[in-house]
Amino acid sequence: MDDDAAAIEGLLTAPVRATMEESTYGAWRRIADADAVGLSFGFPFPDSFPQAELTDAVAAVFEEEGPQALQYGGGAYANRLTEVVQERAARRGIDADDDEVTLANGATHAIDSVCRAVLDPGDVLVVEAPTFMGALGVFRTHGADVVTAPVDDDGMDVDALADRLAARRDRGAPDPTLLYTIPNFQNPTGTTMPADRRRRLLELAAEYDFAVLEDDAYGDLRYDGDPAPPLRALDEDGRVLRVGTFSKTVAPGVRLGWVLGDAAAIRAVDTVAPGGTNTFTRSVVGRYCDAGGLESALPDLRDAYRNRRDRLLDALDRHMPPDAIWTEPEGGFFVWVELPEDVDTTAMLDDAIDAGVTYLPGAMFYPDDGSEHCLRLSFSYEDPDAIERGVEALAETVRPRL
Amino acid sequence: MDDDAAAIEGLLTAPVRATMEESTYGAWRRIADADAVGLSFGFPFPDSFPQAELTDAVAAVFEEEGPQALQYGGGAYANRLTEVVQERAARRGIDADDDEVTLANGATHAIDSVCRAVLDPGDVLVVEAPTFMGALGVFRTHGADVVTAPVDDDGMDVDALADRLAARRDRGAPDPTLLYTIPNFQNPTGTTMPADRRRRLLELAAEYDFAVLEDDAYGDLRYDGDPAPPLRALDEDGRVLRVGTFSKTVAPGVRLGWVLGDAAAIRAVDTVAPGGTNTFTRSVVGRYCDAGGLESALPDLRDAYRNRRDRLLDALDRHMPPDAIWTEPEGGFFVWVELPEDVDTTAMLDDAIDAGVTYLPGAMFYPDDGSEHCLRLSFSYEDPDAIERGVEALAETVRPRL
Repeated sequence: MDDDAAAIEGLLTAPVRATMEESTYGAWRRIADADAVGLSFGFPFPDSFPQAELTDAVAAVFEEEGPQALQYGGGAYANRLTEVVQERAARRGIDADDDEVTLANGATHAIDSVCRAVLDPGDVLVVEAPTFMGALGVFRTHGADVVTAPVDDDGMDVDALADRLAARRDRGAPDPTLLYTIPNFQNPTGTTMPADRRRRLLELAAEYDFAVLEDDAYGDLRYDGDPAPPLRALDEDGRVLRVGTFSKTVAPGVRLGWVLGDAAAIRAVDTVAPGGTNTFTRSVVGRYCDAGGLESALPDLRDAYRNRRDRLLDALDRHMPPDAIWTEPEGGFFVWVELPEDVDTTAMLDDAIDAGVTYLPGAMFYPDDGSEHCLRLSFSYEDPDAIERGVEALAETVRPRL
Repeated sequence: MDDDAAAIEGLLTAPVRATMEESTYGAWRRIADADAVGLSFGFPFPDSFPQAELTDAVAAVFEEEGPQALQYGGGAYANRLTEVVQERAARRGIDADDDEVTLANGATHAIDSVCRAVLDPGDVLVVEAPTFMGALGVFRTHGADVVTAPVDDDGMDVDALADRLAARRDRGAPDPTLLYTIPNFQNPTGTTMPADRRRRLLELAAEYDFAVLEDDAYGDLRYDGDPAPPLRALDEDGRVLRVGTFSKTVAPGVRLGWVLGDAAAIRAVDTVAPGGTNTFTRSVVGRYCDAGGLESALPDLRDAYRNRRDRLLDALDRHMPPDAIWTEPEGGFFVWVELPEDVDTTAMLDDAIDAGVTYLPGAMFYPDDGSEHCLRLSFSYEDPDAIERGVEALAETVRPRL
């Protein structure tokens, strides 16, 4: 192979080339390699992983199912995992028949499959601003025309969205095909959309005829307060596709997520997710859940994450200068910190790493630009004491800039 | 949710809707549920799966790597699997740097990702006729304009392809963007393309500027004869993307495949495969391979499949009526049987199931119609004695039709 020749480059699609050029890999690498307290990535803390239980589950699956667990299609435990998703959905008011649920290779794969099912290149997609940067990368590969709806302390500002949709119609711009939202403990702001906003959002979806992609990756990890109903539970005309994941409650390495939605939508998602999911891991996690592993782990996980969140918020209170403000999430992994407008958190990152902490700059969570003076902190990965040290280092970095 | 309402249906993309309508699920179900000798699907035989070794590998991975094996990105064994792919490629003359290989969730996912990287809707894609029906389903979701090249006893008939490409140019039809080929033990015909044809194919790819997707799912399972060089090993200007899988040599349930190609192409494939691969399974299979499991299993697998192939060919010789002809593959899982032109193997399937055998009708392997009088037999799944009984049942079914 001649390294200078790259006949293939001219054959790549335009959206793929554009996405490759937008890659933020350099910044990621710098953060991942930093010798500092990690408040940047939404990684679960390592002790949360059920290694012993998964090891037992592997042995049990092979003993009970033999080679079927490794064959195309898998055995009963691979399907048991789908039932677990249905059972857990039912407790939140979502009645999902067998043809209204499908598994995916993680939530990001689930998001991608939903996009493939409904988005043609150039279709309009609404996202919260700010929103999950991993999803933004996916949307780019689909060549979607991404427009934004602002987020306030109660998640997506649905009234502002209504104004924008009406203004688009007034000037003849196309209506959206899809809207992406993280209604619970939003990534990156940690905010949650109340029930009335959820209902109003679905009214807009009906009025403008768009589908809604509800990403509830963190819904199982609520530490205080009462949950609002999932959008899918309020969905009267079958336009919500709800995605979830075992990455935060079992482990990211099992790469298992799911999609719940109208039967036609689920069939479409299966059509564009060729090759299926990993039946070996499905079986192992299915057995783990069947033995009660997930249900008994969740209270401990919530306690551990609540403790981390409390330590983070307490440390912010004690160390941060008075000009900084931040959100107080009822669940999930993230706190959004807003600094005075003239602070550039992208430029500040190297100094923060030198001081001993990492975060993600606010601009990463926008399709174009925005919130250069904000940053996301994750309390999910580090020990509580390390979180405290990290906030001290952040405060040290911020103070001379105010 | 109201079952009658399906707002989402109107929002699905046109290629997805078309693919959903073309679904052959009914036929699949009938074959899968049949109480008959299974000569239909390319399933490995159950005893080939290394259950004990994988169980040991799970324990070893957790002991050596702890929670990192379950974290985003995984640990050293997850990356070890990539090295295994590189080492095995090197033995076939393919020099793959770290940025010239990526893992996928099985070969079908790998095929899909390559399509996403290079195919815009309406782009021309060349396939062998007949070809792997799973790939045809993938191509449909991309809205590709699928054109065919015939297959003879030496795989794709490259001279016929040259004629068709020239004729297309003469009449102003667009050149292809991608060509899909299974050069070794082709699915479904079992035929293999000799080295001179492979070189000629790459000359055509350069002349007409298309990329080549080389699917070598069965390349490790050669039972006689000498291998021809992989297309990727002959690829001088970086237009070949080579995909492979551990589904046939470890187990389908581990859902692990790979793509080898030019660095720009691999980066594009990674861009359109969001969410990554299953680091847990990657680690387990990485450890299995690292401990020598795959290398020591391969000779036994080849012996077992060679024995099954020989039993199938021998049974065909002894039982089938003289008007039937079939291929004699040097590897892989499949034999292609050609019956007289007036036999319709789709219509014959129910009688075959009644007689006690399943196969796949030839028409399944064409984008439109073709080879209604042919059928594919797979010798991979059943025991040798069952294979013999299956062929007897097939011969019984065929005989009154001749």
